[in-house]
Amino acid sequence: MGGRLSAIRSVAPQLLTGAELVVDTTGEGFTDVTREAARFVEQSGAGDGVLLLYLRHTSASLVIQENADPDVRIDLVKALRLLAPADGPWVHSAEGPDDMPSHIKSMLTEVSLSIPVMGGRIVLGTWQGVYLIEHRDAPHERNIALSFIGKSAEA
Amino acid sequence: MGGRLSAIRSVAPQLLTGAELVVDTTGEGFTDVTREAARFVEQSGAGDGVLLLYLRHTSASLVIQENADPDVRIDLVKALRLLAPADGPWVHSAEGPDDMPSHIKSMLTEVSLSIPVMGGRIVLGTWQGVYLIEHRDAPHERNIALSFIGKSAEA
Amino acid sequence: MGGRLSAIRSVAPQLLTGAELVVDTTGEGFTDVTREAARFVEQSGAGDGVLLLYLRHTSASLVIQENADPDVRIDLVKALRLLAPADGPWVHSAEGPDDMPSHIKSMLTEVSLSIPVMGGRIVLGTWQGVYLIEHRDAPHERNIALSFIGKSAEA
Repeated sequence: MGGRLSAIRSVAPQLLTGAELVVDTTGEGFTDVTREAARFVEQSGAGDGVLLLYLRHTSASLVIQENADPDVRIDLVKALRLLAPADGPWVHSAEGPDDMPSHIKSMLTEVSLSIPVMGGRIVLGTWQGVYLIEHRDAPHERNIALSFIGKSAEA
Repeated sequence: MGGRLSAIRSVAPQLLTGAELVVDTTGEGFTDVTREAARFVEQSGAGDGVLLLYLRHTSASLVIQENADPDVRIDLVKALRLLAPADGPWVHSAEGPDDMPSHIKSMLTEVSLSIPVMGGRIVLGTWQGVYLIEHRDAPHERNIALSFIGKSAEA
Repeated sequence: MGGRLSAIRSVAPQLLTGAELVVDTTGEGFTDVTREAARFVEQSGAGDGVLLLYLRHTSASLVIQENADPDVRIDLVKALRLLAPADGPWVHSAEGPDDMPSHIKSMLTEVSLSIPVMGGRIVLGTWQGVYLIEHRDAPHERNIALSFIGKSAEA
């Protein structure tokens, strides 16, 4: 139980910025959006604060995952297929056999994330990347809303 | 990999509001709280910013999901039952056979969400609604804490 | 559908604080970090606002879960093992047989959470605790970034 708490940094939050990130997926699988998230924070003129990401779709997901071995992302897609099989006992099938499993996969992962920002940079762990997961078979245009709340860099 | 980043909007965050939303569930299933979340933001006098939702329970969930075909929500409940079966090898059974599966379903989904706000409106995707999922068999009174951080409408 | 919305509290957010919490895990299982999260908020001089937690790892998780019966946490670990079995059809095995299941378990749960703060205290539900879940077999040092945004206590 418990842990060691560091000293506390304190600033005044004066800056709130927002933008949209449009991602073209190529069908089922992961798209790395780490660089775009970092660029948004830099272009926001951000100092310390928090980045919030929000995905405007229910058959795709936002996740923080391992950025080193690409096999991990392949296995994660495989794991989601096992948990939400296309041949499951689903009633909703009007939009194709890959639609209902996509909603289930979205429910089991995330559509909103928050990431800390320090000195204008998102502070991920060493092995972390920010990914959009497309769950549908076909390519889709996906929209992520980005918000930064915190201190401005120059203030 | 990557995507297209829009122009960045920037304001000063001067407003933080909070309220509680009490939801009476009718047993296992989805309750749409989109309208209540939107009303909280409007009544907060919000401009741009972020809405944060937090559910104070461990046998229910908050999710963003498809708002069009009601069959989707029926299939999502079914999917959760398959992932956390009532007849699983669970030790914790003091509160009834539907209690431990409810905790598992809560762990696999969310209790905290953030949603972007623009011009006093929550900016969901076209097919997105905000839902509370009751995992217990019996009706329950559930409490959601709502917080808005951002700019006020008139400022 | 719907619910009852309380009166809305409104303050000015002037305070943003940040710190790191280091947690030594003892291998697979739950570590309660509720007290440390509460201490961070108190030491931040926080009034009303929001606490954001972010875990800098992809083989561990942050969850809000039941804090009463320890059997619940044992069953939750069991449930995650059933959903992401060590003997699954995973390609990624370079870091040991417990590594890929750990990434899957992390994807199915959370690495970022937000919790409301009122009067300098985190407002959890009666039966809620904040937990780090270690998914790896071996003990690990884990890092959680804590951020508070809101009003200061004295303001």
